Amino acid sequence: MELLEQRILSEGQVRPGNVLKVDCFLNHQLDVDLLDKLGQEFYRLYKGDGINKILTIEASGIAIACMTARYFNVPVVFAKKAKSKNIDGEVFTSTVHSFTYGKDYDITLSKKFLGPQDKVLILDDFLAVGKAMHGLLDVCAQAGAQVGGIGIAIEKGFQQGGDTLRAQGYKVSSLAIVDEMTDDGRLRFRPQ
Amino acid sequence: MELLEQRILSEGQVRPGNVLKVDCFLNHQLDVDLLDKLGQEFYRLYKGDGINKILTIEASGIAIACMTARYFNVPVVFAKKAKSKNIDGEVFTSTVHSFTYGKDYDITLSKKFLGPQDKVLILDDFLAVGKAMHGLLDVCAQAGAQVGGIGIAIEKGFQQGGDTLRAQGYKVSSLAIVDEMTDDGRLRFRPQ
Repeated sequence: MELLEQRILSEGQVRPGNVLKVDCFLNHQLDVDLLDKLGQEFYRLYKGDGINKILTIEASGIAIACMTARYFNVPVVFAKKAKSKNIDGEVFTSTVHSFTYGKDYDITLSKKFLGPQDKVLILDDFLAVGKAMHGLLDVCAQAGAQVGGIGIAIEKGFQQGGDTLRAQGYKVSSLAIVDEMTDDGRLRFRPQ
Repeated sequence: MELLEQRILSEGQVRPGNVLKVDCFLNHQLDVDLLDKLGQEFYRLYKGDGINKILTIEASGIAIACMTARYFNVPVVFAKKAKSKNIDGEVFTSTVHSFTYGKDYDITLSKKFLGPQDKVLILDDFLAVGKAMHGLLDVCAQAGAQVGGIGIAIEKGFQQGGDTLRAQGYKVSSLAIVDEMTDDGRLRFRPQ
């Protein structure tokens, strides 16, 4: 998606260790107009796929999920990264390793919000190795929910998460795929 | 706001210990159409107040903030609850006590996203004792940002957070204020 690639080029910052900072518009400060356009694009890509729920994971994914759900007119449900006292015992759980935070964490999703009647579009801001996505897919499998598609804002194409999911048969759409990122700040996008 | 009160009455669940579960539509599963109407109402209440940024805290606040920001056409910035390796050293921090999670945590906000040029509308899903709000106000004070208003979906009016903020002179608008909540599940809303 040209608009997103241009934004990454103009405002993204490459940091050592394959870190791409896009906190100006995607995951700390949020450009809601841009997010709306991403949502519109996800709708274009998945509108024929019978999606009845959007699944994401806190925190940044929530923004993209909400802006996209407006177009689909379906509810969002988001997996939580910490167990709250307010959550019932009736939850699906999966363990995820975060490279960003350098530790394992559990994600939880209340069983009442996902089941065999659901065909979900899973959305997130980033896909790299795919650990968080693996957790969300595990939750869908536990729920018996069908995965209608996986939508990502920015995929790090030089890591294996996206291509592994495609090889497994998932319909993965990443609106920008960064295939190369050098420490001096150059980026190369995969032609789509 | 009648629509929100009706939704709380029909789908909210009162649990012992003054817990009001609204996870069906507000903070685990998200009814995006309802959130859009909350956003529209916040816009009606604050559109004349020169707001140029919406500030919230992860995770549930992000959904309300994004849906509201569409009407104001301003960016959202959200405080983070955990320090990520991806965040610069240049952050405002404040310590918050969470009754939900039973512990203290730090919130962080990158300094580049909030400053004296900003007049912010602070939004969150719940206001009870007001600990998280206190952290967000502390961050605004550190940044020299002006607080144009505080918008809350559901205020627990029997706890002191909201009324303390009003006494301090803040323009606090809660779309539903629960003044009484009994363990057998009855709710009484404050007339507004």
